[in-house]
Formats: sequence, C-alpha cells, structure tokens
Amino acid sequence: MAAAASKRKKKAKTWSGRFAEPVDAFVQRFTASVAFDRRLAMHDIAGSLAHARMLAASGVIGRRDLAAIERGLARVRSEIRAGKFAWSIEDEDVHTSIERRLTEIAGSAGKRLHTARSRNDQVATDLRLWLREEIDAIAKKLSALEDALLAQAARHASLVMPGFTHLQVAQPVTFGHHLLAYVAMFERDRARLAGCRERVNVLPLGAAALAGTTFPIDRAAVARALGFDGVAENSLDAVSDRDFAIEFAACAAIAMMHLSRFAEEIILWVSPRFGFVRIPDRFCTGSSIMPQKRNPDVPELVRGKSGRVFGHLVALLVLMKAQPLAYNKDNQEDKEPLFDTVDTLKDSLDAFTGLAAGLRPQAKAMRAAALEGHATATDLADYLVRKGVPFRDAHEAVARAVRAAEKAGCELSGLPLKVLKSFSFAVGADVFKALTLEGSVARRNHVGGTAPAQVREAVKRARARKRAR
Amino acid sequence: MAAAASKRKKKAKTWSGRFAEPVDAFVQRFTASVAFDRRLAMHDIAGSLAHARMLAASGVIGRRDLAAIERGLARVRSEIRAGKFAWSIEDEDVHTSIERRLTEIAGSAGKRLHTARSRNDQVATDLRLWLREEIDAIAKKLSALEDALLAQAARHASLVMPGFTHLQVAQPVTFGHHLLAYVAMFERDRARLAGCRERVNVLPLGAAALAGTTFPIDRAAVARALGFDGVAENSLDAVSDRDFAIEFAACAAIAMMHLSRFAEEIILWVSPRFGFVRIPDRFCTGSSIMPQKRNPDVPELVRGKSGRVFGHLVALLVLMKAQPLAYNKDNQEDKEPLFDTVDTLKDSLDAFTGLAAGLRPQAKAMRAAALEGHATATDLADYLVRKGVPFRDAHEAVARAVRAAEKAGCELSGLPLKVLKSFSFAVGADVFKALTLEGSVARRNHVGGTAPAQVREAVKRARARKRAR
Amino acid sequence: MAAAASKRKKKAKTWSGRFAEPVDAFVQRFTASVAFDRRLAMHDIAGSLAHARMLAASGVIGRRDLAAIERGLARVRSEIRAGKFAWSIEDEDVHTSIERRLTEIAGSAGKRLHTARSRNDQVATDLRLWLREEIDAIAKKLSALEDALLAQAARHASLVMPGFTHLQVAQPVTFGHHLLAYVAMFERDRARLAGCRERVNVLPLGAAALAGTTFPIDRAAVARALGFDGVAENSLDAVSDRDFAIEFAACAAIAMMHLSRFAEEIILWVSPRFGFVRIPDRFCTGSSIMPQKRNPDVPELVRGKSGRVFGHLVALLVLMKAQPLAYNKDNQEDKEPLFDTVDTLKDSLDAFTGLAAGLRPQAKAMRAAALEGHATATDLADYLVRKGVPFRDAHEAVARAVRAAEKAGCELSGLPLKVLKSFSFAVGADVFKALTLEGSVARRNHVGGTAPAQVREAVKRARARKRAR
Amino acid sequence: MAAAASKRKKKAKTWSGRFAEPVDAFVQRFTASVAFDRRLAMHDIAGSLAHARMLAASGVIGRRDLAAIERGLARVRSEIRAGKFAWSIEDEDVHTSIERRLTEIAGSAGKRLHTARSRNDQVATDLRLWLREEIDAIAKKLSALEDALLAQAARHASLVMPGFTHLQVAQPVTFGHHLLAYVAMFERDRARLAGCRERVNVLPLGAAALAGTTFPIDRAAVARALGFDGVAENSLDAVSDRDFAIEFAACAAIAMMHLSRFAEEIILWVSPRFGFVRIPDRFCTGSSIMPQKRNPDVPELVRGKSGRVFGHLVALLVLMKAQPLAYNKDNQEDKEPLFDTVDTLKDSLDAFTGLAAGLRPQAKAMRAAALEGHATATDLADYLVRKGVPFRDAHEAVARAVRAAEKAGCELSGLPLKVLKSFSFAVGADVFKALTLEGSVARRNHVGGTAPAQVREAVKRARARKRAR
Repeated sequence: MAAAASKRKKKAKTWSGRFAEPVDAFVQRFTASVAFDRRLAMHDIAGSLAHARMLAASGVIGRRDLAAIERGLARVRSEIRAGKFAWSIEDEDVHTSIERRLTEIAGSAGKRLHTARSRNDQVATDLRLWLREEIDAIAKKLSALEDALLAQAARHASLVMPGFTHLQVAQPVTFGHHLLAYVAMFERDRARLAGCRERVNVLPLGAAALAGTTFPIDRAAVARALGFDGVAENSLDAVSDRDFAIEFAACAAIAMMHLSRFAEEIILWVSPRFGFVRIPDRFCTGSSIMPQKRNPDVPELVRGKSGRVFGHLVALLVLMKAQPLAYNKDNQEDKEPLFDTVDTLKDSLDAFTGLAAGLRPQAKAMRAAALEGHATATDLADYLVRKGVPFRDAHEAVARAVRAAEKAGCELSGLPLKVLKSFSFAVGADVFKALTLEGSVARRNHVGGTAPAQVREAVKRARARKRAR
Repeated sequence: MAAAASKRKKKAKTWSGRFAEPVDAFVQRFTASVAFDRRLAMHDIAGSLAHARMLAASGVIGRRDLAAIERGLARVRSEIRAGKFAWSIEDEDVHTSIERRLTEIAGSAGKRLHTARSRNDQVATDLRLWLREEIDAIAKKLSALEDALLAQAARHASLVMPGFTHLQVAQPVTFGHHLLAYVAMFERDRARLAGCRERVNVLPLGAAALAGTTFPIDRAAVARALGFDGVAENSLDAVSDRDFAIEFAACAAIAMMHLSRFAEEIILWVSPRFGFVRIPDRFCTGSSIMPQKRNPDVPELVRGKSGRVFGHLVALLVLMKAQPLAYNKDNQEDKEPLFDTVDTLKDSLDAFTGLAAGLRPQAKAMRAAALEGHATATDLADYLVRKGVPFRDAHEAVARAVRAAEKAGCELSGLPLKVLKSFSFAVGADVFKALTLEGSVARRNHVGGTAPAQVREAVKRARARKRAR
Repeated sequence: MAAAASKRKKKAKTWSGRFAEPVDAFVQRFTASVAFDRRLAMHDIAGSLAHARMLAASGVIGRRDLAAIERGLARVRSEIRAGKFAWSIEDEDVHTSIERRLTEIAGSAGKRLHTARSRNDQVATDLRLWLREEIDAIAKKLSALEDALLAQAARHASLVMPGFTHLQVAQPVTFGHHLLAYVAMFERDRARLAGCRERVNVLPLGAAALAGTTFPIDRAAVARALGFDGVAENSLDAVSDRDFAIEFAACAAIAMMHLSRFAEEIILWVSPRFGFVRIPDRFCTGSSIMPQKRNPDVPELVRGKSGRVFGHLVALLVLMKAQPLAYNKDNQEDKEPLFDTVDTLKDSLDAFTGLAAGLRPQAKAMRAAALEGHATATDLADYLVRKGVPFRDAHEAVARAVRAAEKAGCELSGLPLKVLKSFSFAVGADVFKALTLEGSVARRNHVGGTAPAQVREAVKRARARKRAR
Repeated sequence: MAAAASKRKKKAKTWSGRFAEPVDAFVQRFTASVAFDRRLAMHDIAGSLAHARMLAASGVIGRRDLAAIERGLARVRSEIRAGKFAWSIEDEDVHTSIERRLTEIAGSAGKRLHTARSRNDQVATDLRLWLREEIDAIAKKLSALEDALLAQAARHASLVMPGFTHLQVAQPVTFGHHLLAYVAMFERDRARLAGCRERVNVLPLGAAALAGTTFPIDRAAVARALGFDGVAENSLDAVSDRDFAIEFAACAAIAMMHLSRFAEEIILWVSPRFGFVRIPDRFCTGSSIMPQKRNPDVPELVRGKSGRVFGHLVALLVLMKAQPLAYNKDNQEDKEPLFDTVDTLKDSLDAFTGLAAGLRPQAKAMRAAALEGHATATDLADYLVRKGVPFRDAHEAVARAVRAAEKAGCELSGLPLKVLKSFSFAVGADVFKALTLEGSVARRNHVGGTAPAQVREAVKRARARKRAR
C-alpha cells in the first residue's frame, strides 16, 4: 500500500492552493483520518451516487457527467472490495481518497461531484448510513440473545434456585425466571436502539459546509434514495450534530452494563463455591502455570469491556462539550470511539448468545444452596398474615424464629412445631407446607412472579412481542 | 427536627429483631438515606395509597384497615407539607419514616400496609413516579426555551452574521438560522426524553423483594391508579433495574452538552473581540477587584455544570456495573446523582430561557465581522460552477483569488474585475452580485438553508411540530 | 437564618455600581456559592489574617487598621463557630459574606482588607488550605485502616484459605497474606496523596485577579505564615489552576477502587456460598420483608460509592477542558464534587477500618474450599520440575492428572500413587507431601510470597515503613 | 503473516491438555491479545532474560539451558525486529508466542523458561518496563515543549496583550507571562509523572500466579538487572495491581486538559476576531468547499483528543472496580486504553512543541484589544488606594467612572481630569500615568507578577529548575 502510494505522483491536497508551505509529514499523519474512516467507504460511495443522481435530475450536472460518475464509482467500489485501492494518508480522509480516484478514472465529471456539498455534510451522511446499518445488526444480535435465553427459560421454568439480594439467600426463584430478567433488559436495549435509530436516520446532506448551498438541490429525493426518514431541518446543526453518536454510545453502555451483570453472575455461578452452572469449555481458557485451571475468560473479558464502552461514551460527550457551531476538527475524533463501541458490543453479544445457549444448570447445587439461608422465611410471615397477624408483627415473629433456628443450627423447617408456635399463636400444623421451596415459588403466581406457570406465560408473551415488532 | 426526633422514644428498626448488637451511630448515618430520599415522600404516599386500595379490593386487608390507612396517610401528608413531620435517621429511609408514623396514627392497620410489598419494589415505584413528573417538567422547560429561540429567530430571520467553522469565518448566515440550530437540538432532547419516559412509566410494585408475592395482588389495577403504562414483566428485573435512571442521565448529559455549546457561543459573542450580542445585566456579575468587569457568569456556570451531569452519568453506570441480581444496597447510591441531575438541568434550562429571550444582537458588529474573512468565497466558486467550470477547478481558482486578495489587503469583492478574471475565464461583470452578503444568504434557499425565507418557514414548521405533540 | 438575612437592610453587591438593573432572584440563587463554600470559612479567615498582617508589615495598611481587622475577624470566627453568623445568598460567597460582616464590625479598616488581592486568588488559597488539612486527615485514616489490617494479618499469618484467580481456586494462600495485599494498596494511596499534597501546598495569593498586584507585597511571608511550601510561580496559572483538585480526585478514585475490591470480597466472603468470614452485625442491615436477612450493607454502599467518586473525577476534568486563561466562573463548580469526594472517602475509610478490625475468618469453611479445586496442582508441577522435568512438560502431565482426578471425583491427592506415576515417571512416594495445603504455602518462602514466615516479616516491614514516615 | 501462521502446524495451547473440546475460532479471536500486546515484545524478552539468568544463578536451571535460552531469545528478537516473526492469534498473547518460538529454537531449555513464573506476573512486569520507558519519553517531550515556551516567553517578555477573565478584558499582561502559565502546568505534569514512575518501577516478577513460587528465587537480583527500584511486597497485589496504569492515565488526562486549554486559546487567537497570533500553515488545513479557509486543525484535534484520554481513564477505573483478588481476565482490557493514551499524549505534545515554537504574536492586534475594555481600571482603583481611599470605596468610585466612560463611548483614560476627579477627591493630575498599559504591567513587579522584569526572572528560574532535575 505504502509502495503504491509513493509510486503515485505527489498530488496537491484539495485545499492546498491556499498554502505557502507544505504540510509536513507529522501533521499529515496526525490530522489524517483515512487509516480509520475508510471503513465508511461503501457508504461514502452510496451517498455520492445518490447525490450525483439528484444533481443530474436537478440539472446541476449533465447526464453524461452522471454516467461517468456512476461508472467511476462502480470501479472504485470494485477496487476497494478487491483490496486493490491505493489508500494513502496524503489523501487525508476516505472522501478525498475516493473523489481523487474517481477523478483519475472519470476526469472532469469527477471534479463536478463535489458541487453543492462539503465534506462536513458528507461525513455526517456517511456516518449515519453506517451506524443505521450497525444498529440493525445489533438489534438482530440482541434478538438472538433473547431467543437463546427464552429457550433456556422455557426449558428450566420450574428449576428452583436461590434468589439473592445483597448476595444473601433471599427467596427461592426458578432458573427460568432468573434468565427472563435478562430478557427484560435486552428488550429495553432494543427499544432504546429503535428510538436512537429514528434520530440517526435523518439526512444531513444539503447542509453543505454549514449554510446550505446555492444550487437548486432536492434533499427529499436524496433522502428517499438513501432510505432516510427525513432531512435535517437546520444546516448548521446538520454538520455539527453528533448527538446520534453519543446517544448510540449511551445505549451501548447500558447494554454492556447488562452484559457485565450477567457476566458477573456467570463467573459466580461457575466458581466452585456456587457450582450452579457449567459452561462449555470453549468459553474458558486455562492457566500457563496452574494445570487445573478452567477460567471463565469470556464473561470476564466482557465484564472488563463494559469499562471500555463507558469510556467511549465519556470521550464523545467531552468531545462535544462547549464546541461552538458549526463544524470543528474536534469532530473527527468521533469515529474511533464509535467504531470500537460497535465492534465491542457486537462481539460481546455474540459471545453471550453462545454462552447463554451453552449454560447447563446444576439442579443439585442450586437446591442445596436454596435450602440454606431460610429462603422461605418470607413465606412463613405471609402464612401468619393470612392467619390475621399484621405484617409487621409477623415479620418480627419470624425474625425471632430465624434466630432460634440459627442457634439450633437448622433451617426454619427443622424447628419442631411447638417451637414455631412459641413465636406466634397463629402457627398451625399446616405451617410446614408454607416452608417448601416448590410451594414458595408456585405461590408467587402473578404477572412478573416466579411461579413456573408464570415463567411459561412470560416466555410466550416475550415471543409474541418479538413477532409483533 | 433533631429535638423532635430525640424526644420520640428510641424505637427498634423494622429488622432489628434479627440482630445481637445495636447498629452504631456511624453506620446508622452512613447507611441512612432519609436525608435525601424524603424528597420522594409525596410519591411514596401516592404509591402506598394505590397499594392499600388494591389490597382491600383483593381482600388482603379489610375495608376498615384501608380507611384507617387512608386517614393516616392523609395526616402524614399534611404534616410533611406543613414541615411538622419528625424526620430521623433512626428511620433509615423515607419509606420506613412514613410507615412508622402511619402506625403511630393508625395502629395495626398501619402494620398491614407493607403486606405483599417490599422496600425494594416500593423505592423503585417511588423513584419512577417522581422521575416521570420531573421529565414532564423538563419537557415543558425545553419547550419554553424553544419558544424563546423561535421568537428570536422569527425576529432576526434576515439579520446577517458570519457563520464559522473552526472558529474561522466560513459563510454568511442569518442570526435566526443560527438560533434554529439550537431549536433542532432541544427538539431532539425532548424526543429522547419522550422515549425515556416510556421506559420509566412501568410499575415495579408487585415484585416484592425479588420473586413476587404469595398474596392475590392485582398489579394492573395499581398501574392504572398510578398512571403507569404497564407492569414490569419480571420481578427480579423490576427491583434491580436502574436503566431508567441511567437513560435519563444520558438524555440530560446530551441536553447539558447542547447548553454548554450555546454557553460557549454566548461567552464568545459577548466578549469585546466579538461584540455580537448583549445580554441583560442580570445574567452577569462583576469583579471584586476589577471595577469595569461585566462577566457572563450564567453561561459560564452552565458550561461548567455540563461536567457535573456527565459525572453523574458515569457514577450511575459504574454503580450498576457487574451487580449480580437482584437488589443490592449499592442501588441506594442512585438517588443523589439523579436528584442533582434533575435540579441542574432544570435550573440551567430556566437560565437559558431567560438568556435566549434577552439576547440583543448587534447587527453592526456582526456585519463588520462577516465582511472580513472572504465569507463569500464559496459563492464565487458556485458562480464559476454555474458558468460551467467543474467544482474542483472553481475551488482552486477561488483559492488563488483569495491569496491575491490577502496580499492586496482587501476582501475578494475589493479586487478589480480584471484581476478576478485572471483566475478564471468564466468571471463576468455580474460576479460582484455573487459576492454580497445578502445575496449569499438569500441563495441558500432550500429546506435547512440559511435564506431568510427558509428561516421563516422553519420557524413555522417548528411551531407546527410543537402544536402537534 | 433567612429571617436574619431579610432583617438586614438590602445591601449592594460589591460590584453592583456597574449595573443598570438589579440581579434577579433566580440568578442570585443560581450563581451564589455561599450555600456550599461557607465550609471554607475558617480557612478564609486564616488567609485573610495572614494577608492583612503582610499588608501591615509592608506598609500598605496601617497598624491600627490591622488591629481592627484582627479583632473583627476574631469576632466573625466566633459568630460562625457559635452558629450565629447571618449567611445570605445576597452575599454570593463565603469571602464576601465574611468581608461584609467584618466591615460592619471594623468599618473602613474592613474595606482595606481586599487591597492587593482578588477573590480569584483568595478562593484558590482557601481551597488549598482546606484540602491540605483534609489530605492529612485522610492519610491518617488510611494509616488506621492499614493498622487494622496489619493486626489481622499478624493474627492470621498462617491461616490457610484458597487463593483465587478468575474466581476459580488457584493456589492456597494465607488469610494474612491476602489482607496484606490491601495494605500494599493503601500504602500506595498514601504515597500518591503525599505527592498530591506537594502540589496542593503552594500559595496562589498575590496573583490578585490574574496579573499580580501593584502593591509591594511579600508573598513569601504569607506563604510562611500559612505553612505553604512555596508560592505559585505564575499569576495567570495561580488563579486558574485546578490541577490539585483533579489530582486529588484521581487519588481518591483509586483509593475508592481499592475499597470497592475489598468490598466485593467481603460481600462474597459473607455470602453463605463462601462463608469465609463473619462481620459484626453493626455493619449489616435487615430486610423490610424477609425476616431472615442480614445484608452486608456497608461494603455494598462503599462498592456503589466508588462510582460516585469516579463521576466527580470526570466532572472536574470536564470542567477544566478547553477553558481559556485565566479565571472563568466555571471554576465555581469545582467545590461540590471536591467536597463530596473528601466526605465520601473519609466515611468509606472509617467504615472499612471498623470492618477490617471486625472480620472474623472462618477457618473451617476456608479449609474446605481450599481442598476443592486441586489447589496444589502447581505444587505437583513444581515437584516434577525439581525432579528434572521441563516446566512445560510437567504442566502438561499435571493437567492430565487433574482430568483423571475429576473423572474419578476426587482431588489430586486422592489418586493412588500408581495412577499419579502414570502421568510422569518422575513421581515418587514423596509426592503426597507436595500436595498438602500447609506445605504449599510454606514453600512460597520469599519476599512477597505467602509463607507464614514471610507474612510475619511483611507485617514487620510495613510497620517499620509507617514509623519511618 | 497469516500465511506464515497457517503454514505452521496446528499447535496445542499451553493449557489445552485440560479441555475436552477445541476452543472455537470466535472465542480464540475474542480472547487473544496478541494483536495488540506484541507491542511489549522487546520488554518481554528483556524480562525473560533477567528471569532466566536469575534461575541459572539460583541453580533452578542449568548453565547450558541458560545459554540456549539466551541464544534463542536473541534470535527471536532479531526475527521480530526484522518483521519475520510469525505472530498468530493461536498463540493467544505475546508471551506465549515468544515462548513457543523459543522452544522451537531451543528445545527443552525453552520449556524450562517458565519455571517459577506465570503469565500473571510476566505481563505485569512487561507492562511496567514498557510504561517506564514511555514515561521517560513523555517527560522529555514535556521538557521540549517547556523549552519552546520559555524561548518564546523570553523573546516576548514585554509584549503587552489583554489578560482575560471570563473572556472579558481584565488587565494587561505580557505575552511572555501568559505563555509561562503553561510552563507552570507542564512542570507540574512532569512532577506528577515522576511520582507515578516511582510506583511503576517496582518488580512484580516472583509473584508467579498469585502466591509466589516454591523455587528458590532471587527477586532482588531480577529487579537490579531490569532497573527496578524494588520488588512488589505482596504477590496477590503484584499480579492484580493496575494502579500504575490508572495513575498514569490520570496524569495524562491532566496533561491533555492543559493542552486542550492551550488549544482553545490558540483557536481563539487565530480567529479573525482576535488575530493575536499567526501559526505556521503546516498546522492548518483548508476546506473542501470554502476556498478561503485556513483552519487550525491541529489544536482543534488536540482539544478533541482530551476527551479520548479522559475516556481511557474512565475505562481503566471501571475495569478495576469491584474486582476480587487476584488476577481476572478483565485485566487484559488494560492494554489498549493505556497504549492509546501514551500514543495520543506523545503525538499531542509533539504537535504543540511545533506549534509553540511557531507562534507569531501580532503586537498591533493585541495592543488594540488591550486598549478596549478599561483594562487599567484596577490600576485606577489601586491609585486611589495609594492616595488613602479604602479599597472598597476606590472600587466603587472606579465602577462609576467606568460607567461614565462607557456612556461617553471612550476608555477611562479618555475622560477629562475634571470628570475623573468627580468620582473621587483623591484623583490628581498624575492619574493618567496609572492608566497606561506599560505602567500597568511594569508595576506588577513581584514573584509571579506580569512585569517584564519578572517574566525574565521567571524564565531563568524555570530553566534552572530544569537543569537541577
């Protein structure tokens, strides 16, 4: 590539007529974005084609110029796809690279392409086209992850495990119910992205440098051609707005936060202290020194990567802080954090879809853990309430019973009826039914509750919502 | 208050039956949230009333208990409003404070209120009720700021000022057009908040501690009573979800970023180097040492406060990172950043609504600045293009003309026709019309362009969109 | 207070001679800092005294003026300490409040105090005096926490627990050794703060508004009087520098990160799945619904508070981003994040000093956990290496042995000698000694290793370093 | 490279003996770090050589093994330098890549190299060696930037420009004095980095996986060989500590904040509204549409890049939040933010060293700006104080005079003596001397003040401090 670049004759930058001295090598490298923004090449070409066709339809350029541009851009596209395009930092950015090559191929027609536009509105258009595509891809990946979780939830709708608050045993829940909590999170992630997509899918082209253009353009036609929902209402805003990048990064940060929570749980669950699930070996790695190790590297990495995406969100917010209108070069710094955010989120979602499908719950360990920690103490309180005891008094009575059980070294259900009665007159012989794990989960039988029947219903509703989208 | 608290007899915490030793003073203060969460008191009472009515309707508590609870909560509400409520950190949080006082008033009925709920779902409900109200208030403030800007934009639709990119004179724009860029931003802020509100407006109550409750509750009825759009689908998610707080903080951070940009511009504009606008004295302060100073303190403060809100967003994301399900005490740390984010945004919006209405543009200074810096160079290039010169060649020709003008110490329009012709054969005597400021803005006459006619249309469209909401 | 304020006659602001219209109530509240910066009152008075004495020594003010100022400030100090000082947002900030009250008391002498200074250098001085004091307090709290850990480490130097990597059992370590890891962290925190203190402890006073003053001041004398190590070298920098606040926030963020790690471990250790330690009841709270709960609220809160401090660091960095010289009103936003950072860190350190002292390790649970997971597999590999097997080959052999043990459902030491020999010819009858927990820790007998003897030595060295400071 | 990799026979991972199924391609790519951590290759080799020599000196490996390792690593080093090394993600990371190649070259000697160490302590060692080198390089770049600024400050010690607060004209300062404010900032940056370097320069090697090693190692010898100041005191801390990376990122964030402030000023100064400086064309770029543009791209980019580095700091803090001891895979995410922070800071410093040297102040524009805005109003107040008026009264009098001058449309010095006298009896005929720009700066003649003589002294002191380091 470098060789190819140096073989080409030294060419003037598009704006070099203005300058008394050559831009030196350091500054050239420092200010060039082509090393990373060439990722936008296909979207740049799509945008240029729509622009050229509109210019021709509006009579700003001729039909023959349009034809030459179309042929030229088709060739540029092929060259890029084939890896034969000579990228060079001398060209500063992807837009100039493509325009220059087009002009080599198409001559003066190429020189007419940039009529009625600027790189300012061009880059904003490219970035929105690219991000729209990525948002759609991410929504699909979220959906696939939900599917994997829904399948597991349906399979394990009645598998009892301890539910935790404060990492202390709280009440029994089902494994299916627990997984559905993540489905709820990823559903919200998709909803947020759908809102973000609406604000991404607006055409900046036509804003030109900042004030619009003097040519008789048809922005609505360009918007239609490129699948945008509408055109940006204000040219100064259109070239300087990076809200869509920040909003996307915020959506991604929340999604990564969800993954980090799931990661934390999987790491806990596969630790020998819990042993609640097994995960396929392919999501683990070993140790260079400890031969027995089987480390959950994939969830650990994703947990760590949440920080990376939070950092990109911060970078983008700081970037835009206190920038006067309209475009400033600072904005070039929007791309790398945005690109890495997309890549990180996509990879992390793929990793978790595999992980979710591969989770093998260990019923025995879950049950053993649920049987420690008086998980059904609340059920005992509720039992007393149903017998007429005010909730606060019931709560106090059970707290005393728990202390007695702890002193006796047993669970609540291990205390003799006589002892249980000593904490409340309302305790009857039927109390032990209230203390079983299965009874506890089955009784939480309302929308959102952990009862197996409710879990199955919730899976159905989630699938219906997915179909309805 | 402290006196009142100490007068009350030392009361046991709701969970103290469990403990062997008293919770000491430091930990009590460190873990108590009542100092800040009492801000939720009215929403806590509203939530409790809806819960109690549902419990009665479902037969879980009796009609007389309900009546006692209703009377008791009404009295608690009056005491709080009158500033007579005895808040105490011994009560840990707003929920316990209110329940305890209710029980003092209503006796055992009060002890029945907490049946079928937990503080985990209660606090999530309160916070969502409160935030929903604040989002609506903020949306109104955004709308008022847009109104102020629209009025100014309509008034100054044809006032010419220099448009900048890179803080260098780029092309002439109108002051009205420039202000409309901010209208576009605040419109997006409102749209984002509307999306966020949908995810806020979901009822967690019924999730109880984490797994749902064993009582026959009617969550839909509670949701209707409290104006929620629906119920949370999963109890584990319902008590641990703080997405809505983070999403709101992200919306607020973007809005504050917009205000910081506007602030930066106002600070530049009122500096003597620009002198583009004057702002009312009441938004400025003086200096303790320099008697001549008139400092734009209000926009400077808002610019600084953007960091504060970015920080809160980071705090909330970090808070949730890698938290296992379900509720953990970490979550108590969600309130202070959220409260301060709301307060900061509301105050900053109020400040800018006043500022925006008070901006007095200085036409003379704007015009003088627009006449420096070859603001119509692009118009000259466009002129050449209309004469048939390919854009790239036109761009090069004008760049050479600019250099000549700079050498001659004049603007482009100050060069003799003969000299202008020397850069391109296509230059004719009509070239000078292309170089006027008014002609430049008037020709950018398409949706989103800076032409005065377009600015007036854009104001109309923006107002129509506001009415349509 | 409000009443007292309204009783005072309406007084002009120090700079209001400049303004045509009154500053309205909203802006007054919005721009006033006295609600939070009065925390600096004692340091403001100390700075004013040193300034006034220097002015008198330099002949800028008279001896009688100085005496009046000294008497007046003494009275102001008493009024503030007694809670009788009439704070009012009409006074904007702590500096003006105190100066105005001084002038009420001391007449025209009070009006001379502000000679040769500005609020810009005054607030920077106050903040540095305050932060220096807080850094010293925090260093003491870090030291106390280290003492608590060192005492525990000495006590449990030979108590074996499983060491984890990836939350998988890795190798046995001692509890004392594990606690010393935190001592190492907090030692670094103190070292970082000591470096930060050097950059805090520089006198800005004398910079006046931004350019220095025309009066014959003696900055070195003021620096000596206030205990500063030197004077700021540049007046523009002196009034606009907030590096010290950011650097402190970064130190605090790292310290909070350390506490969040320790918090995470304690939360894991007290969970029933681990059961490695017990913590005193006073660091726990119960549940409003689940009578059996005993939640580690204090470490959970501290874990959550790490986000709060990270957020403040971000706020401060963003605040200063792209601020032109010299002072801008943005800087007023430095105080609240800084104050809250100090308070949060101090409280969190106090909480952990109590927690650390109260940790009661559960030897049995630790031992049981260490016996699961092949913790001494590395010891077996090392054993083979000592018999001449290259490390990589030894590692492979042991990995196969671990698989065999897993298949057999036992630990490595449970495999018969014959089976162990089948993985490497080098295995001899002495192999079982290599597999004991006590042998494993005892053999890691070098500086930094987990051997009990090393732990005791490490405690001694840490104590010696503390004495040497 | 890929071809080379695929030609090599498929090799087992160092820990694959443990696994039942192959690690699939996605996970391999997702978890591999070799794409970025090979940047550490030379430091990895240096660390391995020191380790091997110590092992030989301690008798853990033989002299012939050492010789084979030394020869092998020399060859690996040559291959890497020549670009002939076959990197592959199958090798996971730089450490394994090098060890595997060494073993190909050196046979069983290579397999002995990893004795008594783990990748956990190895990567920590490599990273510290690398960062130490980069810190030294950055300190040199900071020093070079200071030199450029000192040269300019000496050259322009008496050039008067307006000093701003709140971007309003405050008092005259000299350009030299203004530049020295940045010297003060960069000096602090170097001091902070020096402190950070102390905490970087500690040897983790010997910690092995987490607990130390059973071999008779000599950590002090390795530390000496690699130039470390000491050895890490605790093995669990040694492998999990990333404080040094966070502290470095915080230092870098503060330095980037300084550059962003300087960038903002340069952007303002080169705008036509200010016109205070010119910068060489090579730091500017043009526009693709506006032929007249000359945009200060380099400072704009640096201003934007501050956000990038703030983001990396956040990423690193979040990464470590709530990580239990000891090493977790999350830590692999430390490298990319750290690498990019180093690269960004180095490039930004280079850019500004060039920029600083190339600044050409425009004395005329500076003077004109200083003459607007009553820059010497404070001097008038000080004049009155010297005549015996209390400062507060003098301040009020001058404020009224400024209003009169504004009404009259002139500067303070443009008011007739009679009018000036009307504001204070103390005004005499010598008042006009107090109002000159040169008099104003010359009178601020104390350490830190803007007087030309002080600027020259400050340059000397700064150079002396640099020599003393």
